[in-house]
Amino acid sequence: MYLPNHFNAPSPEAIDALVKAYPLASLLTGAPEEPMGCLVNPVPMGLFEPLVKGARLWAHVARANPLWQHLEANPQAMAIFNGPSAYITPNSYAAKAEHHRVVPTYNYATVQVTGRLIAHHDPDTKRRIVAQLTDYHERHQPQPWSIDEAPADYMQAMLNAIVGLAFEVQSVKAKWKVNQNRSIADQKGVIAELQTRQDTPHTEQMAAIMLKNTLKNTQ
Amino acid sequence: MYLPNHFNAPSPEAIDALVKAYPLASLLTGAPEEPMGCLVNPVPMGLFEPLVKGARLWAHVARANPLWQHLEANPQAMAIFNGPSAYITPNSYAAKAEHHRVVPTYNYATVQVTGRLIAHHDPDTKRRIVAQLTDYHERHQPQPWSIDEAPADYMQAMLNAIVGLAFEVQSVKAKWKVNQNRSIADQKGVIAELQTRQDTPHTEQMAAIMLKNTLKNTQ
Repeated sequence: MYLPNHFNAPSPEAIDALVKAYPLASLLTGAPEEPMGCLVNPVPMGLFEPLVKGARLWAHVARANPLWQHLEANPQAMAIFNGPSAYITPNSYAAKAEHHRVVPTYNYATVQVTGRLIAHHDPDTKRRIVAQLTDYHERHQPQPWSIDEAPADYMQAMLNAIVGLAFEVQSVKAKWKVNQNRSIADQKGVIAELQTRQDTPHTEQMAAIMLKNTLKNTQ
Repeated sequence: MYLPNHFNAPSPEAIDALVKAYPLASLLTGAPEEPMGCLVNPVPMGLFEPLVKGARLWAHVARANPLWQHLEANPQAMAIFNGPSAYITPNSYAAKAEHHRVVPTYNYATVQVTGRLIAHHDPDTKRRIVAQLTDYHERHQPQPWSIDEAPADYMQAMLNAIVGLAFEVQSVKAKWKVNQNRSIADQKGVIAELQTRQDTPHTEQMAAIMLKNTLKNTQ
């Protein structure tokens, strides 16, 4: 990923928060015979510790998904997590009114994690993975559902139909392309426009990320 | 991508709409020397015609981004477009109250386009790409900004700093994992829960996609 220094993420905590808020990874797994050299599958992944080298992400896929059959020969993998993104109109920039030397851009925040992916077939490990992911995602439910609520024979059949995945982190790259290269006045103009825009998804979330970043830089 | 038939997209129009509403692609470009066999860059892409074999997606990247230097030797590319996604709690399912034989899942809609990527360095082509992308993204602005508003020398310098990209579509795979394999009552329960959930992004958009899909199936 092309990553100029001024588009680095503001902090490790911001990266962890993005992965937790947008947990559906595009998971690339090595498959040399494929046209791109890899398989790509959407897979929700759980992060339950700081995202540093040696940390693990947890997931599971359908046993019928062939991706896990390639892992012994090709354990190398990449998980891409995309946060919010939004088109930025030059109309938002304070600088536009001054000199008109402005062009549009596109803001986004993205995290690329590389590492090794390991398949788990042991029922106890799979049950632990499923329980941890479930408890995490249920945390804001008024009455969090637990895997213990399902009948034992049914849960066993469900666990038989999946394969557990552990992703051992080797490196983390994160790009926050959120107008840091523009004046604070321009950033504030963009945030205000995004907060009122109605027609596209993500604008409210992008405004929130920018607000956090802009405030940090002006404190 | 693992794609059981029951998770096919509802229509070509639904696929086009997703690519237009979520235009930030994870763009994979062949680079055999990389660990995954490819480079991955977030790149917003413009679709201005139906997404079928032979169609083109348009984009541009910074000239400083090395991805375009690999294209002559390795034109093969994949663009991944992710729509909304959301954890689905078993609490939503009507079936839960009946027999408790339910487990959580994760809903999403994603499009994977494979094809050939071609770099454009001609100033007129780059200007046309930038103008078309800008006009598209400005379409809902109260006063759409046009590239003609920027001073000519400034726009020339900006165009010099980018490389245009044309993505010639070879194949389109789309996966709509939106509870189609459950009863209409269960789908309606999920939609209702997503419409009221406050803690996560995407839930409103996922509810809208499901509503479209569910209504289609009950008409």
